[in-house]
Amino acid sequence: MDDVHGRSLNQVDLTAVQIDDEFWGPRREANRKSTLWDEREKLESRVDNLRRVAGLEVGGFEGPYHNDPPIYKWIEAACYVLATETDPELRDTVESLIDVIEEAQDDSGYIHAYYQLERPTAERWTNLATGHELFAVGHLIEAALAHDRLDGRSRLLDLARRSADHVCDVFGRGGHTGYPGHPEIELALIRLYRATGTEAYLETATFFIEERGRPDSRFEWELNHVEQVTGGQTPALFRDEVGEYDGSYSQDHAPIREHTRMRGHAVMATFLYTGVTELVRETADRELAAVLQRLWDDMTTAHAYVTGGIGTVPESESFGEPRHLPNEGGYAETCAAFGKIQWDAVMFLLTGEARFVDDLELTLFNAFLTGISLDGTKFSYDNPLSSEGGERHRQQWFETSCCPPNVARLLASLEQFVYATKGDTLFVNLFVGSEVTVGLETGRMRIQQSVDYPWHGSVEVVVERAEPETSTLAIRIPSWAESVTAAYNGRPVDVPSELEQGFLRLERAWSPGDTVSLSFDMPAELLRGHPSVRHTAGRVALRRGPLVYCLEAVDNETPLEGVHCATGTDPTPVHEPDLLEGVTTLDFAGISIDDGEWDTALYRSDTEIEARPVDCRAVPYYAWDNRSPGAMCVWIPASNEAIQERLDDS
Amino acid sequence: MDDVHGRSLNQVDLTAVQIDDEFWGPRREANRKSTLWDEREKLESRVDNLRRVAGLEVGGFEGPYHNDPPIYKWIEAACYVLATETDPELRDTVESLIDVIEEAQDDSGYIHAYYQLERPTAERWTNLATGHELFAVGHLIEAALAHDRLDGRSRLLDLARRSADHVCDVFGRGGHTGYPGHPEIELALIRLYRATGTEAYLETATFFIEERGRPDSRFEWELNHVEQVTGGQTPALFRDEVGEYDGSYSQDHAPIREHTRMRGHAVMATFLYTGVTELVRETADRELAAVLQRLWDDMTTAHAYVTGGIGTVPESESFGEPRHLPNEGGYAETCAAFGKIQWDAVMFLLTGEARFVDDLELTLFNAFLTGISLDGTKFSYDNPLSSEGGERHRQQWFETSCCPPNVARLLASLEQFVYATKGDTLFVNLFVGSEVTVGLETGRMRIQQSVDYPWHGSVEVVVERAEPETSTLAIRIPSWAESVTAAYNGRPVDVPSELEQGFLRLERAWSPGDTVSLSFDMPAELLRGHPSVRHTAGRVALRRGPLVYCLEAVDNETPLEGVHCATGTDPTPVHEPDLLEGVTTLDFAGISIDDGEWDTALYRSDTEIEARPVDCRAVPYYAWDNRSPGAMCVWIPASNEAIQERLDDS
Repeated sequence: MDDVHGRSLNQVDLTAVQIDDEFWGPRREANRKSTLWDEREKLESRVDNLRRVAGLEVGGFEGPYHNDPPIYKWIEAACYVLATETDPELRDTVESLIDVIEEAQDDSGYIHAYYQLERPTAERWTNLATGHELFAVGHLIEAALAHDRLDGRSRLLDLARRSADHVCDVFGRGGHTGYPGHPEIELALIRLYRATGTEAYLETATFFIEERGRPDSRFEWELNHVEQVTGGQTPALFRDEVGEYDGSYSQDHAPIREHTRMRGHAVMATFLYTGVTELVRETADRELAAVLQRLWDDMTTAHAYVTGGIGTVPESESFGEPRHLPNEGGYAETCAAFGKIQWDAVMFLLTGEARFVDDLELTLFNAFLTGISLDGTKFSYDNPLSSEGGERHRQQWFETSCCPPNVARLLASLEQFVYATKGDTLFVNLFVGSEVTVGLETGRMRIQQSVDYPWHGSVEVVVERAEPETSTLAIRIPSWAESVTAAYNGRPVDVPSELEQGFLRLERAWSPGDTVSLSFDMPAELLRGHPSVRHTAGRVALRRGPLVYCLEAVDNETPLEGVHCATGTDPTPVHEPDLLEGVTTLDFAGISIDDGEWDTALYRSDTEIEARPVDCRAVPYYAWDNRSPGAMCVWIPASNEAIQERLDDS
Repeated sequence: MDDVHGRSLNQVDLTAVQIDDEFWGPRREANRKSTLWDEREKLESRVDNLRRVAGLEVGGFEGPYHNDPPIYKWIEAACYVLATETDPELRDTVESLIDVIEEAQDDSGYIHAYYQLERPTAERWTNLATGHELFAVGHLIEAALAHDRLDGRSRLLDLARRSADHVCDVFGRGGHTGYPGHPEIELALIRLYRATGTEAYLETATFFIEERGRPDSRFEWELNHVEQVTGGQTPALFRDEVGEYDGSYSQDHAPIREHTRMRGHAVMATFLYTGVTELVRETADRELAAVLQRLWDDMTTAHAYVTGGIGTVPESESFGEPRHLPNEGGYAETCAAFGKIQWDAVMFLLTGEARFVDDLELTLFNAFLTGISLDGTKFSYDNPLSSEGGERHRQQWFETSCCPPNVARLLASLEQFVYATKGDTLFVNLFVGSEVTVGLETGRMRIQQSVDYPWHGSVEVVVERAEPETSTLAIRIPSWAESVTAAYNGRPVDVPSELEQGFLRLERAWSPGDTVSLSFDMPAELLRGHPSVRHTAGRVALRRGPLVYCLEAVDNETPLEGVHCATGTDPTPVHEPDLLEGVTTLDFAGISIDDGEWDTALYRSDTEIEARPVDCRAVPYYAWDNRSPGAMCVWIPASNEAIQERLDDS
């Protein structure tokens, strides 16, 4: 983090990237063709509420009070699709939603269906802890920025700016000193500032960030003085065991500069810290940068599942105690994976360090991608690493419908994570078949990336256009890759054992046709958990490349609890083009414990275990629950000495 | 279970047993001197409700609707104490409570403070699923039977019979065909039948048992037609995921003869099946006996913690899926341990098989006894086998105050479990220092039992009085005892390797002074869990004799998660007279994992574990949380090959 300065790396706009990838192609096509349209239908009752505000329909408010954000998130997702594809029907749908929003927004710029229909004007902005008004404005802004990309001057952006201006008028020192219960508007206002240059947006975002967590919390006052609008975020979550105010649930426990550990609601936390990171990208504030680094380290070393998932406490969707990572009873909300990916992405842009992309990739392929079925029609809200009884299944929708549109907007904007630039350098972050055109300091450059990822560890980058000046291609070497070889136009290139910030950097005067080939071994790995993580003790997890694997009942002897994996096992990768839309499985000789000897006792000291080899197959975690329903586990019991001896004897 | 017949064994009345035991003495003294008086004070607000019914005080009902049963249970506990000790103050307190009950009971025999104060008479018996009216009558009967023991003709028994007669008038075929939501009255009515000979009590108990679980469930009807009185038992617990009626929570899913698995609320289940067992003791119904056997086997082979605790699902206090036995997130309610002990006791009386006493003893010393602090002032409702964060502590009271008075009444009536008789045989079930006088077919016999249990495996039984006729002493050989020696007046006695129903039977013409000595090895055992129990995989639990042990932070390096126990470890029993009122600890050389190598990664495949030997101390599970608060675990991670190798190398 020595390299803190304003906007150290540049995000590549998603229109500059054309993805053509065998792995992501089907996922994104399901998103476009199925997910988006299903979600639009499910959102109709929410649009009705806005229609009632607009006077286009008669009636009162119906449904959960956090009505509007999923609509905005849907528009954002649709606009990402429209940025790279022509789809008149989708465009019409977007525009007709904007028509409703336009009518629903009042003259002040305020829009929030629940408050507009159900509450007197005086109650606006009085219930920030749980009321979600500022959260909604944030998502309106993000949708507007996505819409503005389509053909420049966007009327949704005009609407969003009116809302943002209203927020900037109302809030700030000397005015309303509240701040959002659910962070989101901070990152949105900073991005709006970048798009428009209006300083007020940056100032208000800064105000929200710095005001949170001060003594005499606004939320504490609200909880004691204001009737609460509640949905998932109930007031009880803001109180400790003896009933005293405890703001940690909403990161309101201390001023931002004093945050040291990941606490509270995982989605709120990652959205807040994404906003703070965006702020530091503007201000180069070293103190805040150090706070972010400390928090991110805490998240990844004390609070993350092997899948990258975060937030282990179901009751509050929150971070638990350090290294409390229960499997079956865990949470790992899909939106929290989204939030973590979002934060990873901007931490990378702030620092240029590949480890943030490593974490982004891990979370993307596992904790996030498991949140949607292969056909794009079902979603999971929480993603535990074990389903003993096999009753867990994705669902078509949730009343608190935060996850499905977050899945849609991320899949539709995957382009944003693949590349980045800085000065004369083009960064290749993710291995996704694609073409990108960027402007470097040294001029325009276009490259084509070809991969068969995540199944094979080979990457080919062909330069299609380059200026005569020397520029740099920086290709991420994943943290799990131990044996890496590289070649430039067929000739071996030295890969330093100590990489600069995790990237292989090739500085050349590039010519069209120049080819860089990268190859890393992708062996199956048996992971163990930190000795202080009780839930992984005596177990192993399988990982290959960026993918974490699981045992699913449909492929294995059941109960899965009886299947053990011996230390030293070397699973065989087997590519199965017809399985789960094409996956590489990890097959291994496991050990099945014969229950025969155990028929009548749950516990015994004279363990005469009947063990026998059994064929086991692990599939990628993201792909589970797409076939016959059944049990699943990521952390497989490791065989112990007694079992091993019995096998050796037999 | 071939030997099914009515009342096959006789319980020995608690007045025939005088306990003088170093282990149980302090526990029972704390119960008499501290627990009972504390509880009486806590119950005052509940007695006030009965006073209001009686017109002795003005005001409406206050507090939880299940107001009365804890008062009855308290009286029952106090009467057990009074049966063996003279305590005028306690007796006065009991009698003054009976004064209130007498005034509160209405002319019909009905008594239930909540319904009497808050509801019209027409609503009585309309909300059986959750209303607890019949449950309360059951406890009134049990209290009355205990009171009747004090000096014969009891006015509380008269009151209870009026309530019981009223219930028998109201319920039955041709009348009100309902049955209790929370079973209890079944077992109480059968015991009342035994005490009085009134057939109607047996008939109504039989009706309640056989009516439950039939098609067109009464509870289902109530849930759809009657406003619910709710406390802990909310109507949602009676519905499945799609909202359909599912009676399994309250064992209303099938007629009793079709019950095959332990389901639903663990306390309700054990109370119901205790009643059914009492019924079979009267009727010798072979079909029901087989049902009970199947259910008991299911409980102990699929649903019991190593401590004997049952009921693993906190949300519903219920049995979970078979072999779903989570440690940290488990439940194992103290009342469920009480219910299991109660059921074990009557299953033994029904069958004469020692295995039921084995389970009773395990549950008594562990899952039950952990429910109260050593000083008798604090209680636990749920008793998980792990407290990672160390935040779990016993409490002084609970609004739903079922557990504390159950603890009190069991400790005060421990005598009932120690001995039993049948024909010419005196059974010595539990090893408790005591004297007992019984009438056998062959005449009166008095013996004295001396033990230093559970710390040493030696039992001495001295005959103090016997008739000249040949009679039998049957001494239980615990299932965990592998090496047993016995002597009769100093001369070795053969202990058959195949015991008859688990007892060593000595048939003699006994003379005063005859001495039987029994000695069993009591090594520390490393238990493993059934391979299909995911939560015990890769872990071991320590047991010595009937006691299950745990690691407590105050005795060990923390975090406990870092402490491993190697397979093959042989812990050393060390008796510490000043620790925890005198316990034998299990000390062993554990393995501590040094986190140094793991500082920055939660998961890794290149495990270079720094392991070193560390002194570990385990204490009995019942005694934990009586010193400095901290973490606790029963299932200790077992060391694996990698760790073992590192130690062997160093």
